[in-house]
Formats: sequence, structure tokens, C-alpha cells
Amino acid sequence: MKTTKTEVPPGTGRAVRVAAGELVRVIDVDGGQVGDVFAFTGDFTEQHSVAHTRAAVDRLFPAVGEFFMTDRRRPILTLTEDTSPGEHDMLIPACDPARYAALGAPDHRSCAVNLREALAALDLSFAGPIPQPINVFMRIPVGQDGRLSWLTASSRAGDAITFRAELDCVVVVSACPQDLVRISDVRLSPLAIEIVHNGGTTS
Amino acid sequence: MKTTKTEVPPGTGRAVRVAAGELVRVIDVDGGQVGDVFAFTGDFTEQHSVAHTRAAVDRLFPAVGEFFMTDRRRPILTLTEDTSPGEHDMLIPACDPARYAALGAPDHRSCAVNLREALAALDLSFAGPIPQPINVFMRIPVGQDGRLSWLTASSRAGDAITFRAELDCVVVVSACPQDLVRISDVRLSPLAIEIVHNGGTTS
Repeated sequence: MKTTKTEVPPGTGRAVRVAAGELVRVIDVDGGQVGDVFAFTGDFTEQHSVAHTRAAVDRLFPAVGEFFMTDRRRPILTLTEDTSPGEHDMLIPACDPARYAALGAPDHRSCAVNLREALAALDLSFAGPIPQPINVFMRIPVGQDGRLSWLTASSRAGDAITFRAELDCVVVVSACPQDLVRISDVRLSPLAIEIVHNGGTTS
Repeated sequence: MKTTKTEVPPGTGRAVRVAAGELVRVIDVDGGQVGDVFAFTGDFTEQHSVAHTRAAVDRLFPAVGEFFMTDRRRPILTLTEDTSPGEHDMLIPACDPARYAALGAPDHRSCAVNLREALAALDLSFAGPIPQPINVFMRIPVGQDGRLSWLTASSRAGDAITFRAELDCVVVVSACPQDLVRISDVRLSPLAIEIVHNGGTTS
């Protein structure tokens, strides 16, 4: 089975096109690295929506077998396999220049800028508000009182989360550059995107 | 103190302009009615964001004294008073034509269309994905296992939630037309928007 692998260097983002039926895997190469995942339909008219996903699956956080919806309530990805401890977030927005400005580092890289840069590399321009990402390997447990905690990623080297594309789509993965709040391990590290192509596809 | 009251008929939406420092109150006139609240900056370049709000207040649901952030992480509203039982949702998207199509009622009114219509009445056009609303009087408790339940609104006639505008803004309130899923009481009912103007303002 043919696969294509794309390295996502520490603190940067990459976009890939995935055909309906293909698998796309996000690998935490060294462990302890949060990734922000975004999905858009291939024609770029719909985006994944964590809110519409929550309303469809009636859960705060994703589980194997569940799907992710677009903002027009169509399944775009299904979570098919997860070798990590299974802690992923759907509550927190992408880090952005305003976040780092408030932390005293206005010129810091961010997942929001990584998203735009990664899309630009595919000649796609995205002007609207940044969609709320699927934050893989990010630990934001919710207490009984509704309070959120920010914990460090527990994923280990080689842990991976795999999605099946339900539509032709563009998937963006940002290896989150956040190193001022300890959501990733001390040293920012790379992620990798692996596409498992359909049996019949060549090269 | 001068106030301006706007009725929001059952199943429809209304938009109002609120100046920084003014109070805007959403009243559940007959009780048991969910409202979808949206806020945009007066120049329409920023929108309220429940995700950025969660990241700032570290809570799933709003509490008195807490603020709501824009997608550029600026406080736009502060929750100053709440005479309802205090159950409001920040997890669920606005109902929209796709939601009602899936429920077998493709021509049903929706909060998404109410938002666009209410803004159009102020000569504002909104084309992007619908922001995730602040769902006042909507009960979506989260179990310890992260599962969401959809319960009927517990607000009583005259209950109100009051926000202070931190920026000049446009606030939209939709009296949610959802009557196929029992989030509001059996009979859809009106909401009202009351603006409490600053002391010095005239007429």
C-alpha cells in the first residue's frame, strides 16, 4: 500500500491534499508534541467545525469510530485508529499573534499563521477567522465544576492518530510552537503526516 | 436611566447596536426559551469567539463576572448579572438549514438564517461561517465521561442575563426556532433585548 510522508518541522505547519477514502495519519515523532489539525473540503467551501462535531457525536472530545463534521454538517474525517493515550482537545483555539503578544512575545510563531502559510504553499488563500482546530495530543481535562486544566501532552515517540477522509479534502497540521505555556514537552519537536493511498492509486 | 427595548418574536432574530459601557439584557419573556447570542465589533471586523473565551476564562460555561472574547482576544462583553438558574451553553452551534434538513424539515427557520436576516436589517452583510453562539438559557450539561445531554431550558418568565459592552458592538439575539428537539419549552416564545444606556445619553 503506497504511503506519502510529509515532515512537519518543529513550530511550523504543512498542508496536504487527501482524497476521499484515503487515510491521513498524524505522528508524534519524538513524543509530547501538540498538533493543531484543520480540514477543509477540496473545493475550499467548507471547513471542519468542532462545534458541529460536538452536536453530532454528543461528546466533548473525539473517540475512535467517531467522525468530524464540516460547518455544513457533512462528515469530513473519521477517527479510525489512535495509538496515543487518546487525549485530544476540541475546546481551545489555535495560538495566534494576539496570544503571544499577551505573553510578551509578539513576534512568536503561531498555529494561526502556520495555517495561512501552509495553505499559501498550496496556492490557497484563507482570510476568515481561524477555525477552531482539532488539537491532537493536547490535554485539556474538564473538572466536574466545568473548569479546564492545561496539562503537558502525554503522547510518546511514534504515537499516531489516524483519520479516514470522507470527502476530498485539504488537511493542515501545525506542530504547535507554543513553548511559553507547557502544553508540549520542554523541547518543541516535529510531527509527520502520512497519507495511506487507496489500493488502486499509482505513484 | 434610559432604556430601549426590542422585542424578538418567537423563532426570529434582531440585531442592535450597543455602545461601549452600555448594558444589554436578554429577557426570557415567557420562560423556557433558548436564545442564540452573537456579538461583533461595531466596525464588524471582529466577532465574539467562544473558543477564545474558554481559553481566557478556563471554564466550559459562562459565570457572572466573566468576559467574552473576540477572535482577536479582546474582551467584548462582560456577564454582569443573571437572574436565571444560570445554565447557558457554549458548546453547540447555531441551528441551520442543514440541521433541519436532517430532521426532515428543510424549510424550517433557523438561528443561522435569523442572524443573517437580523444583520441585513442593519445593512450589515455577513458571508462567512456562522460564529458559534453564546446559547443563553440552553442546558447542555456534560457528564464525567464527557458526554453531552440536551435538556429543556429551565429559565422562568422574566429571567434575564445582562452583559456590559466592553467595545462598541452589534449584538444579535435569535429566539431559537428549534421545536423538533426539546431544548426550549413546548411552545416557542419571544425574547426581549433591553439596552440600558449610559447616564449621559439622551433620547
